[in-house]
Amino acid sequence: MNCEIIAVGSELLTPYRQDTNSLYVTERLYELGVRVTFKTIVGDRLENMVDAIQAALRRVDILILMGGLGPTEDDVTRQAVAAALRITLKRDPEIVAQIYTRFAARRLQMTQNNSRQGDRLEGATILDNPNGTAPGQWLDTVYGGHRKLIALLPGPPSELKPMMDQECMPLLRDALPPRFIAKRTLKAAMIGESAADARIAPIYTKFTDVETTILAHIGDIQLNLMCTKKQMDLAQRRVDELAEKIEEELDDLIYSSQGETLEQIVLYYLEMKGATLSVAESCTGGLMSERLTRISGSSRSFLGGAIVYSNELKTDFANVPPELIEEFGAVSAEVAKAMAEGIRERVGSTFGCGITGIAGPGGGTEEKPVGLVYLAVADGKHTDIVERRLMGDRERIRQWAAQQGLDMVRRRLM
Amino acid sequence: MNCEIIAVGSELLTPYRQDTNSLYVTERLYELGVRVTFKTIVGDRLENMVDAIQAALRRVDILILMGGLGPTEDDVTRQAVAAALRITLKRDPEIVAQIYTRFAARRLQMTQNNSRQGDRLEGATILDNPNGTAPGQWLDTVYGGHRKLIALLPGPPSELKPMMDQECMPLLRDALPPRFIAKRTLKAAMIGESAADARIAPIYTKFTDVETTILAHIGDIQLNLMCTKKQMDLAQRRVDELAEKIEEELDDLIYSSQGETLEQIVLYYLEMKGATLSVAESCTGGLMSERLTRISGSSRSFLGGAIVYSNELKTDFANVPPELIEEFGAVSAEVAKAMAEGIRERVGSTFGCGITGIAGPGGGTEEKPVGLVYLAVADGKHTDIVERRLMGDRERIRQWAAQQGLDMVRRRLM
Repeated sequence: MNCEIIAVGSELLTPYRQDTNSLYVTERLYELGVRVTFKTIVGDRLENMVDAIQAALRRVDILILMGGLGPTEDDVTRQAVAAALRITLKRDPEIVAQIYTRFAARRLQMTQNNSRQGDRLEGATILDNPNGTAPGQWLDTVYGGHRKLIALLPGPPSELKPMMDQECMPLLRDALPPRFIAKRTLKAAMIGESAADARIAPIYTKFTDVETTILAHIGDIQLNLMCTKKQMDLAQRRVDELAEKIEEELDDLIYSSQGETLEQIVLYYLEMKGATLSVAESCTGGLMSERLTRISGSSRSFLGGAIVYSNELKTDFANVPPELIEEFGAVSAEVAKAMAEGIRERVGSTFGCGITGIAGPGGGTEEKPVGLVYLAVADGKHTDIVERRLMGDRERIRQWAAQQGLDMVRRRLM
Repeated sequence: MNCEIIAVGSELLTPYRQDTNSLYVTERLYELGVRVTFKTIVGDRLENMVDAIQAALRRVDILILMGGLGPTEDDVTRQAVAAALRITLKRDPEIVAQIYTRFAARRLQMTQNNSRQGDRLEGATILDNPNGTAPGQWLDTVYGGHRKLIALLPGPPSELKPMMDQECMPLLRDALPPRFIAKRTLKAAMIGESAADARIAPIYTKFTDVETTILAHIGDIQLNLMCTKKQMDLAQRRVDELAEKIEEELDDLIYSSQGETLEQIVLYYLEMKGATLSVAESCTGGLMSERLTRISGSSRSFLGGAIVYSNELKTDFANVPPELIEEFGAVSAEVAKAMAEGIRERVGSTFGCGITGIAGPGGGTEEKPVGLVYLAVADGKHTDIVERRLMGDRERIRQWAAQQGLDMVRRRLM
């Protein structure tokens, strides 16, 4: 069965706001083997909504409407569905009473407007909304001679997601033929999308029953594998078989086989080995540290570091000898090495990482162009050094460099 | 006239990818006084595309299609428009020759597939694409007895944006009644959306001819003002009048009146005063430094800083006396003050900023709960200190704290 998602709200038609709820709903529908074939975004005007709903019912079997269930005059999703299907909409005293109770519990006064949320579509099942006042509705009906499943969900993500999970998914599951879906997410660092695809396409194209999606971020590839079967163990086996073959091919480029982020993996390895890390960042300006400290508990393994933008700070915080900067320049393999070794010594961590480079757009020369970055990781015995010539704008160069820094630490820990 | 945007591409119907082109196109259409009333996202299937195009032509006057102009079998936007309008699609030798020339210039071999991009819709104007091989097309036609303007634009943003600006906008402008639009963007820090709206709604609701949109980010509010008139000076005057009244009301909460980011404003003030800044960050883990160093040229005023996650580093890099940490705890007004003063001294900058707090989810106590953050800004004579009790998850607390740090520096510089 195919599905259309309609996101309701005039703000979603401005340059400033975007529907993101549909990504969540689509992901949940995948688990049922349901594909989204159309998405429509429509404003709060009744006439436009009726048009969108009728267009959808002509072309799909499942229709998910998101938004427009609130108490204001602008919230007309219930009326629009009633008009499109030519069914009645009646105030349900039981729902109104529930809304009233919810308001009372929060010691709020219920306004007249709020009782509009108690309007029930003819034949609809009410979907409970513990996180807001507007209940959802579910219709299993017939339109143009065909069976149609229609869900009306609230717009706020904090209300929509639980209602999709707890109310809508069981109803959909009951209405659809049984399916089992196995999934795996692999991640690889420091390889481009086309380079990765060239290596793994010969593998995954042979697994016609597994859907493989490649998502590329800066210096990062995410491979989503998904297989739908009538039996769970069959689906799982196929996904695992393909994952194993891809892991063989991409080898140590793969850093995660369960969807973890690179910073999570680095912190996990550090903790496992009882090791600690410090970082001296120049061109990345705190980006690598910021990524590590996003993770709760990172303070157990990440001790801190320095943002050594100026030459003086490279010396003062990371023990880089001024003569070295004088001789080789601040952007050089020698200085990156000294930064990694110096910050490690200063902080007293197991590992030290140093990053220096030219993020641009200014500051490049013929010899040392924008995008030139040196990275080093030291452990007291040996220091790895990498030179990269990165392409793109300032933001992209900074992101690549931070990713490379994290990946170097990971490789050192493996 | 109203408009529908159709984004074409099966990947836009997965949980992983989202149409963002339409935000850009919507913004440009605003300048012409054209409103988007529907957005549709459809996959690469011809039959579904024809359905979407016909639905759109029944309800709007202007239709912008994005994507599906490439050389592969999946790229069927041209065929879909031809089928929907019942017009012919013919290979145009002139376009094919141009594509051929473009390939030759890059010393690439043109494949048979690529000549599909030379198919021209009956009556279409060709839109030049200097950034790719697929030209766009423009139709000024009649459907269902009404005039319809239809643009076929390529999907890659690097091709779509220039074609929208240079080819499509002039054609639309010629076809539409003349309008002038004045815009202003104001930004305010450290105020919530509802608090801001409560203060300014009584003002902007009186300007019925100016459209005011409020966008909220973490600790940040953006106010977009827009006015459309037949004369430019009239539109500009109304926007400026409203902007002035809002600036009066929100006063020093407003940090930008031309859309600059907070970090740009801080760096701008620093440079104007010939001053420099250093930062000692604990709970924000490099976030404030990272935001400052995103800006090209930031090294002129931002000297660097330290990520002092551990107590030892607070002492070693920011001169915080260990006794102070012992007595008041690492998260305290006293330690924030010492961090700001210490990092300033160590780095030798005009201003020093210190941030210490509990980002959570762990580490909170009854006395010092998750979300408690102390910030300080020192200039050698006086040190400002702020205590905040922030709500939300780890990411939100970190973002608020970094925003507050930047805003404190701004206020000190004002």
